[in-house]
Amino acid sequence: MSGTTATMCGAFSQCRSVLVTGASRGLGLQLVKDLVKKSERPAVIIATARDPAAAEELQRVVKEHSGIHVVTLDVTSQASIDAAVEEVSPLVGAEGLNCLINNAAVGGSINLKTVTAEEMLKTYESNTVAPLMVTKAFLPLLRAAATRGSGMGIHRAAVINMSSILASIQLNSGALAEFKCYPYRASKAALNMVTRCLAVDLESEGILCVAVHPGWVRTDMGGPRGELSVEESVSSILSALAGLSEKDHGGYLDYAGKTLPW
Amino acid sequence: MSGTTATMCGAFSQCRSVLVTGASRGLGLQLVKDLVKKSERPAVIIATARDPAAAEELQRVVKEHSGIHVVTLDVTSQASIDAAVEEVSPLVGAEGLNCLINNAAVGGSINLKTVTAEEMLKTYESNTVAPLMVTKAFLPLLRAAATRGSGMGIHRAAVINMSSILASIQLNSGALAEFKCYPYRASKAALNMVTRCLAVDLESEGILCVAVHPGWVRTDMGGPRGELSVEESVSSILSALAGLSEKDHGGYLDYAGKTLPW
Repeated sequence: MSGTTATMCGAFSQCRSVLVTGASRGLGLQLVKDLVKKSERPAVIIATARDPAAAEELQRVVKEHSGIHVVTLDVTSQASIDAAVEEVSPLVGAEGLNCLINNAAVGGSINLKTVTAEEMLKTYESNTVAPLMVTKAFLPLLRAAATRGSGMGIHRAAVINMSSILASIQLNSGALAEFKCYPYRASKAALNMVTRCLAVDLESEGILCVAVHPGWVRTDMGGPRGELSVEESVSSILSALAGLSEKDHGGYLDYAGKTLPW
Repeated sequence: MSGTTATMCGAFSQCRSVLVTGASRGLGLQLVKDLVKKSERPAVIIATARDPAAAEELQRVVKEHSGIHVVTLDVTSQASIDAAVEEVSPLVGAEGLNCLINNAAVGGSINLKTVTAEEMLKTYESNTVAPLMVTKAFLPLLRAAATRGSGMGIHRAAVINMSSILASIQLNSGALAEFKCYPYRASKAALNMVTRCLAVDLESEGILCVAVHPGWVRTDMGGPRGELSVEESVSSILSALAGLSEKDHGGYLDYAGKTLPW
């Protein structure tokens, strides 16, 4: 029963506002689809995309459901980030933003022979630097939410960084080492470090920070050999997020809530 | 006794050639100073610096000792890396390069308030991308050395990436979390991942890859509060390097040879 209670404490019914980056497709789109269908859904769901006009499926979901706000956000542009904060601020109001999901990312198979400095830097910019700069820009809204709750979790204020099992340095051996992607692995390991730095700095303000591995998912990025459908992954992720509490702060969890080694 | 034997097997007497990047000052300079003074020193010591003409102390050491080759190398420039490989190749000859020490790096205290995307990218370029691109470019010389030995260690072929205890995601808590340096921490965690990727890819060729934490050293980067003098740090590092073997491949060690958690 205590497990059920813990889950209920952080359930999405008590999370008033969620922002998902990279919501035009893949996991980001499915997160928005699942959130909007929940019986006790967050009142304010913000879906960001670099080019919302071109995100046809997102536009379709928005037409079918009320209360999804689509905001243009190129996470690698500080001007775009600043404009998005301006747009989101009145949407969440004085109650602030409860849950920021840094999901936008790039990937791809790149091995030792094909890796270039340009690809390393481009991937780092999207997968590591952008989540940090987005979080920094949205901190005033997260702080506003954090002043209104107690404990830690998505009911108060949380930064969820979409990581990967390929970010685990420890697990980069054996079968898992067969996935060759220097830029992606390095950028996601660095994102894990950024998550931990944020956790240290935001703990006193009650803002939860975690890195989450969504599973190997059959998305454009994960490819057709993925172990989970995007629906299965996102359903598990949302359950895991609902159960987050102070014990998870600064952690690295998979979609089932299990802790992974750095 | 087996410990002594293991150390002897990998001693610098059996390491014919070493290349150290960032040898104009700090740890890099001290590595060159210590290597050249060893009674059984590597025959070929290559000290690289972005601007050797301005590296006065390195020039002084070169004048006092024979057999130190100074090579211009800006690790963030592919053209400079390629030119350095051209210059180093005849210096090491058909026996190849035994030990590449990727030491050049940038650092500095940068907290959540002061961190910028530009600083994140600049630090990543120097501390993560550069060691990868330098290693990739010098691979033909490392491979030449690897074909001539057995086992793993600096007697055969090794890539030593200078990491930091601040690269440990696990240890970023408590007192160690007081060092606020988002760009540096993220870049060095990513370097640990790059080291592990290289270890996976180069294992079958017998090229050892390890990440080494030099201790908190009183250099320009470490500041005056460091726990070790540069002499103490480098003396320990060289002992640890001399003892490296296949058991250390893909690992993350401190200057005393102790394994650190990722």
